[in-house]
Amino acid sequence: MAADSRTNAGVDHVSTYRKLFNFSRSSDTSESAYSAVNDRVLILCTSGNLSITQATITALQEDLKDPERENLHNIVTIAEAARYIGQTLRGIQDRERVWLEKDGIDYHCNFLLGGQIGESPSALYMIYSQGNFIRAMPETPFLQIGEIKYGRPILDRTLTFETKIEDAAKCALLSIDSTMKSNISVGPPIDLIMYHNNSLRIDHQMKLRRGDPYLLKVRQQWETSLQEAFDRVPPISWTTDFTKNPEHSDFSGFLN
Amino acid sequence: MAADSRTNAGVDHVSTYRKLFNFSRSSDTSESAYSAVNDRVLILCTSGNLSITQATITALQEDLKDPERENLHNIVTIAEAARYIGQTLRGIQDRERVWLEKDGIDYHCNFLLGGQIGESPSALYMIYSQGNFIRAMPETPFLQIGEIKYGRPILDRTLTFETKIEDAAKCALLSIDSTMKSNISVGPPIDLIMYHNNSLRIDHQMKLRRGDPYLLKVRQQWETSLQEAFDRVPPISWTTDFTKNPEHSDFSGFLN
Repeated sequence: MAADSRTNAGVDHVSTYRKLFNFSRSSDTSESAYSAVNDRVLILCTSGNLSITQATITALQEDLKDPERENLHNIVTIAEAARYIGQTLRGIQDRERVWLEKDGIDYHCNFLLGGQIGESPSALYMIYSQGNFIRAMPETPFLQIGEIKYGRPILDRTLTFETKIEDAAKCALLSIDSTMKSNISVGPPIDLIMYHNNSLRIDHQMKLRRGDPYLLKVRQQWETSLQEAFDRVPPISWTTDFTKNPEHSDFSGFLN
Repeated sequence: MAADSRTNAGVDHVSTYRKLFNFSRSSDTSESAYSAVNDRVLILCTSGNLSITQATITALQEDLKDPERENLHNIVTIAEAARYIGQTLRGIQDRERVWLEKDGIDYHCNFLLGGQIGESPSALYMIYSQGNFIRAMPETPFLQIGEIKYGRPILDRTLTFETKIEDAAKCALLSIDSTMKSNISVGPPIDLIMYHNNSLRIDHQMKLRRGDPYLLKVRQQWETSLQEAFDRVPPISWTTDFTKNPEHSDFSGFLN
């Protein structure tokens, strides 16, 4: 899972907020959550209205404190976790939405939920503003939220269900980096986390800040390679004699 | 200038309509507009609400029939042409908008106007729904309208004011092809036209239909090269020992 860290309420109100949140549970509280074997790995990614997503994350954290309540540490399947997050979000939307609507403020937001609980299969869900949710499947093995269009072509051309997880992580990074280049509402640091199926631990994560040497190297290599790829595309075979190629000649339209 | 040909009013109402229109004027009416030297080359590209753009194009055509009226064949600068198209569009919007608004129908549309009149410099303009307009400049040498985001990264990474026109044309084609792959609201045929500064004639144009051998070749070459470019990007250098690399270790957030 990968996310940028930029939020904005207009171009004169741009801030940096983390959008990846770790709700994994270590089975051994004496160890770091990252070296321990967890009984579950659950990562959340947010997009959209910051006040709504923050309030939702806060509510999810608060619930963790009370073992009597349903929360992300005692829930038993990822599908149930998605339903519970959607339900928590609906509570926040119920409270906030009418006030935001009054001033025409966009109250939409989305969540990605990925991970694995115990021996159940790992899964990836997207939860909508309305609290309903869908799941990634082999035919559509990735999900995006937020500013999705700029970074979509590289995902469409590179990712399938068979893609190695290491390549998928690289692809996610390039996708976000492409988006950053084309849209100022997306910006560093980039948070990146990779989970290996059935490991129940997070061994691979990083935060790439502006100017990070690896990020610069990746970007430079990608741009050089893209330019070479572009140069290898055969030049356009223009049809100059239109009369001989009626297939290509009907552009002139109403003027002929 | 390049355009796809798909329009839709919802997924169950998809149609094919040309979006490039040629308003060039031949100085010699006995010859084809494409082999003659024109006194002007003017190409229009449309996006957005089809009823509004069609009505505007029709009005522009009607005006051509009356030499007493201001029209695209007697106007003397491209800036004036942009103003005149904006003014014509405002007339249509005045008539249509209130009825479309009643039913929540999007009445927005955009036009690109590119070309050259006589010995004045060539220029490229974008005309907004509101009839105002901007011009491409060396710092921002291309303009997009319609479904712009998917095809933007390749333009951002490849095009500068110094790019050769043949490469710019190839880039425009790849940009639209990328968009077609990621978004079903964009579809073939692709109309493509290239104008050489000061030639006052259109020597390069084509219409690429679905399955066109050149389009298939370009797409295959591009996908192969992209895959190679992707493979050349160095693998992610994950930080596994988080304690030694505090720069990369603060992801765990509130759970640690």
